[in-house]
Amino acid sequence: MGKGQLTRHAVLDQATRTASAVGLRGVTIGSLADSMRMSKSGLFAHFGSKESLQLATVHYARDQFVNLVIRPALAAPRGEPRIRALFGNWLEWDTNVLPGGCLFVAAAVEFDDEPGAVRDELVHNQVDLDETIARIFRGGISERHFRADADPEQFAFQMHGILLAFHQHSRLLGDPLATQRARRALDALLDASRP
Amino acid sequence: MGKGQLTRHAVLDQATRTASAVGLRGVTIGSLADSMRMSKSGLFAHFGSKESLQLATVHYARDQFVNLVIRPALAAPRGEPRIRALFGNWLEWDTNVLPGGCLFVAAAVEFDDEPGAVRDELVHNQVDLDETIARIFRGGISERHFRADADPEQFAFQMHGILLAFHQHSRLLGDPLATQRARRALDALLDASRP
Repeated sequence: MGKGQLTRHAVLDQATRTASAVGLRGVTIGSLADSMRMSKSGLFAHFGSKESLQLATVHYARDQFVNLVIRPALAAPRGEPRIRALFGNWLEWDTNVLPGGCLFVAAAVEFDDEPGAVRDELVHNQVDLDETIARIFRGGISERHFRADADPEQFAFQMHGILLAFHQHSRLLGDPLATQRARRALDALLDASRP
Repeated sequence: MGKGQLTRHAVLDQATRTASAVGLRGVTIGSLADSMRMSKSGLFAHFGSKESLQLATVHYARDQFVNLVIRPALAAPRGEPRIRALFGNWLEWDTNVLPGGCLFVAAAVEFDDEPGAVRDELVHNQVDLDETIARIFRGGISERHFRADADPEQFAFQMHGILLAFHQHSRLLGDPLATQRARRALDALLDASRP
């Protein structure tokens, strides 16, 4: 990795932390120049504009999410074990990877009313993730872990809802039972999907 | 209602719209003075500080939520009908009342890492709401709509998760099936709670 790429990585690593703690709107050339002790002009040379910087941050976080949450889950056996692995990794991602938890949860509500390239990218990620969950669930139908008439997209919707409730209970409420409640909710969702 | 109170109402009505669309952090004395065509000093006289203004906005939105979502639901028969009424009103609240949907969803992720009076108030509201759901659910246990060993707090956690997934699907993804998916998820949650 060349020096330019190293710098870019270091900046985006900081940017994902900032986005996690104060939101993606807090990721600006100026705020990053301050926290990285770099010149604004140097950051402009790397990223060009605030929107490009925010987009690069979303891409970087997406790669992290794929590497830490999705890829390791795909190593688990097909069907229910793979769903459980994905869910466990996702809880871990929202709990321990970034200082303010999953930055996509915050970014989704920040940008849902703001048309533009950042919003489009967030929508794209979200749809991709729901499709990944649905695909893994379909593997579980083939394995006969789940009913043939179960709806994979509905499962993805509900599993995603559990994660969002977990985020709110653990982050906002500081609920010590958040993990236990999330796991029980997944168990109930899986029970309702069995043949 | 005196002129001072009328002005206060008009300002807070605008503030909840702003908070819904761009977040509670976008609610400042300056931004409201602009959108209301009032003087900053006049707004300072009413609210004193940005934090007091944000707190007043949360109180105002909480009153709206109680009047539009909770109170009408309490008029429905106890148990399952009351849960369904609450859920229906809540979907309506997130869809049609404010320009960017439920402002509490956005505020929760904005303030979850920011200690202070606004965060405390949001936590208080959230805990209250979960307790209200759990209490209505307990009424359904008494009516034998739900199993005696069902966990009312777990039900509240999962019902809340469905609303959060609905918010994301309808607001961010523009998913035309969002309402249908949310209603199916509630049906499944109620089915799993029956004796």
